[in-house]
Amino acid sequence: MATTVSSVAEICAAARRASRQLATIDTRTKDAALNAIAAALIERSEEILQANARDMEVGREAGLTDALLDRLLLDSSRIASIAQAARDVAALPDPVGEVVDGRRLPNGLQMRKVRVPLGVVAVVYEARPNVTIDAAALCLKSGNAIVLRGSSSAFHSNAVLAAIAAQAAEQAGLPEGCVSLVAGGGREELGELATQTDTVDLIVPRGGEGLKEALSAVATVPVIYAASGNCHVYVDVAADVEMARQITLNSKVQRPGVCNAAETLLLHEAIAPRALPLIAQDLIDAGVTLRVDERGRALAGALLGSLEVATEQDWETEYLSLTIAVKVVDDLDEAVEHIARYGSGHSEAIVTGDLAAAQSFQLLVDAACVYVNASTRFTDGGELGMGAEIGNSTQKLHARGPIGLRELCATKYLIEGDGHIRG
Amino acid sequence: MATTVSSVAEICAAARRASRQLATIDTRTKDAALNAIAAALIERSEEILQANARDMEVGREAGLTDALLDRLLLDSSRIASIAQAARDVAALPDPVGEVVDGRRLPNGLQMRKVRVPLGVVAVVYEARPNVTIDAAALCLKSGNAIVLRGSSSAFHSNAVLAAIAAQAAEQAGLPEGCVSLVAGGGREELGELATQTDTVDLIVPRGGEGLKEALSAVATVPVIYAASGNCHVYVDVAADVEMARQITLNSKVQRPGVCNAAETLLLHEAIAPRALPLIAQDLIDAGVTLRVDERGRALAGALLGSLEVATEQDWETEYLSLTIAVKVVDDLDEAVEHIARYGSGHSEAIVTGDLAAAQSFQLLVDAACVYVNASTRFTDGGELGMGAEIGNSTQKLHARGPIGLRELCATKYLIEGDGHIRG
Repeated sequence: MATTVSSVAEICAAARRASRQLATIDTRTKDAALNAIAAALIERSEEILQANARDMEVGREAGLTDALLDRLLLDSSRIASIAQAARDVAALPDPVGEVVDGRRLPNGLQMRKVRVPLGVVAVVYEARPNVTIDAAALCLKSGNAIVLRGSSSAFHSNAVLAAIAAQAAEQAGLPEGCVSLVAGGGREELGELATQTDTVDLIVPRGGEGLKEALSAVATVPVIYAASGNCHVYVDVAADVEMARQITLNSKVQRPGVCNAAETLLLHEAIAPRALPLIAQDLIDAGVTLRVDERGRALAGALLGSLEVATEQDWETEYLSLTIAVKVVDDLDEAVEHIARYGSGHSEAIVTGDLAAAQSFQLLVDAACVYVNASTRFTDGGELGMGAEIGNSTQKLHARGPIGLRELCATKYLIEGDGHIRG
Repeated sequence: MATTVSSVAEICAAARRASRQLATIDTRTKDAALNAIAAALIERSEEILQANARDMEVGREAGLTDALLDRLLLDSSRIASIAQAARDVAALPDPVGEVVDGRRLPNGLQMRKVRVPLGVVAVVYEARPNVTIDAAALCLKSGNAIVLRGSSSAFHSNAVLAAIAAQAAEQAGLPEGCVSLVAGGGREELGELATQTDTVDLIVPRGGEGLKEALSAVATVPVIYAASGNCHVYVDVAADVEMARQITLNSKVQRPGVCNAAETLLLHEAIAPRALPLIAQDLIDAGVTLRVDERGRALAGALLGSLEVATEQDWETEYLSLTIAVKVVDDLDEAVEHIARYGSGHSEAIVTGDLAAAQSFQLLVDAACVYVNASTRFTDGGELGMGAEIGNSTQKLHARGPIGLRELCATKYLIEGDGHIRG
């Protein structure tokens, strides 16, 4: 594969050339290419499994944890899921060419603002090999060439997956260089990739804080950082307590290791005496450790012995595990202040039956997703009707919230006249 | 004024506090504040003129060029224009709260994506004092607090203008700290401002390449760089020659010092023998120097002696003056290739009567604004119906083209349920 012998700069330059053609290719051809990738993954499963077995063996020898090995592992059912994900992206609407604004100007000029591909998107990711195909499918569908840089622990798996995707895409009519994988998984390649300002339009990191820090130290190419989520559920005085129990439990335990899980529960002081013992019992039953402030502990009754003491640090912590911080607040204003101070702008929920409280919360809380009477766990491109996502942004510029196909696009203005000149 | 004694960090922190209130303020109050600023500028003209006289005196002593002194100068007619610009922004639609997307999801959740202010916008600018008010009006209207950092040569003028704006805005009900000016105009303050990641959401530089370079070397806060424009007019084989003459002349000479002026003329080889002598004569009559490639010079006839020789460097140059590069190309593809290689992605125009050529040019040219049969000079927020602009972006992320009120906003998702939890 050319993808394993070229330099990072060469790979990116080839991707840039491919991107110019890709931007002009119609939806039908792109969809056919994604379906061809899916078919090729199934057809060539044996190659994938063999490459993955090599990575697993190296990983075991290197002493990777069971959790990491599980993330690395591919089997035929996982390959089938990866192929299905590519088909699902093919079925989504094409963002390229969407007219997002337009009008006839007073001087008669016709103006349209249309979505166009960004160009070349680099995706930097850690162990999970499925990202190779997920990211490639999203980038190709949005008309972008993709440069992948996976981790060295998954190198053999990623190399085969990327090669299959590139070959199937090219056979289906997409340009050479539209999918490529950077050979090394080291910091040097990361630094090289992150400074290809002439050829790379965007880098999306998919990984932990270490990856983000390494990238932000060197990147001159624009980066959209996937989010950390210090998310809150606020139970208002006018909440339905049963609803508050279910939303809190779901926000915390349905999948605690992800960025849209709740990390802190805030309770209005007037509802806390009723709600706190019930919610705490639900959480304890689900195996959650509660770190509770003084006012909360005073209301815990028989549960007091099961509660830990919350400190300042708990308000700042994204546990990503079965732990939750709990605080009793005077009112909605204090809840909003707490969220403004400690939240990461990801997903914030209020449980209330009071319209004014709901409206205030929506207006005052500045986050990518603000929920009324729903779990924070819905912050997800699929759940919000955007289809698949390549990550979730808590930054304010360009993309905030799920990064789907539209967020992988730029816009351009098309302006048509009849000899118009400016006076 | 507090604005002249606080540290950069303190000013930005105060702006952050103001921004939280500003985000909740209704359109009527914001518009009244902008109109109050306009009225105060007129009422307090004498103070402004006195401060400006001090800057002019210091500038003359420091040996500023006449051009720079003219940019610095305020008189009552210029103050009236500045006040009118603030009223014009007040009359524009409020972007905050605009619903840009929304649907009822299959599970019954109601989702809306709405525009919200970015928060705190810092504007870094050079001599022209009118930017103080223009930028403040755009930021306040879009619900953002603004931190201004002007040049030291305009310090007294900027300080009075910012103080008048801040006082008038606060008296009209906007929060304290919504408009402030950083005291020093030095590189140190720039570096401090550009690294306030906790309190500043965006920096917009308004100035030359030197300012951009100084900023990009130190900024950790997101920056939208205003554009340099290496813009092209391509005269297709199917162009109306009279139209091509007018559009080329207008694109080059109507205001040659700005980023949307044309810098290179490309002519299809089949129309060049007819079109080139006529267009060249128009340009020469308007005082333009032409730097022409070999094929073009061979067609120049009697004008040959008036033409200069184009070199590779001319294709790359943004003259910003009465000079234009001219090249004869084989066909539309070569024109598109030339633009891809040398263009800066700002404004590109084709003159043609052929539909297929127009469509190809629009599809293949990747730029903020792509024109068919119209002058490149229309790339301007006012001309495109967006109202005033704070600059013009050639970057692809967040804002491409004029940066108006909408581009000074982020979005958030508001999601409402009835106890929805994720299964």
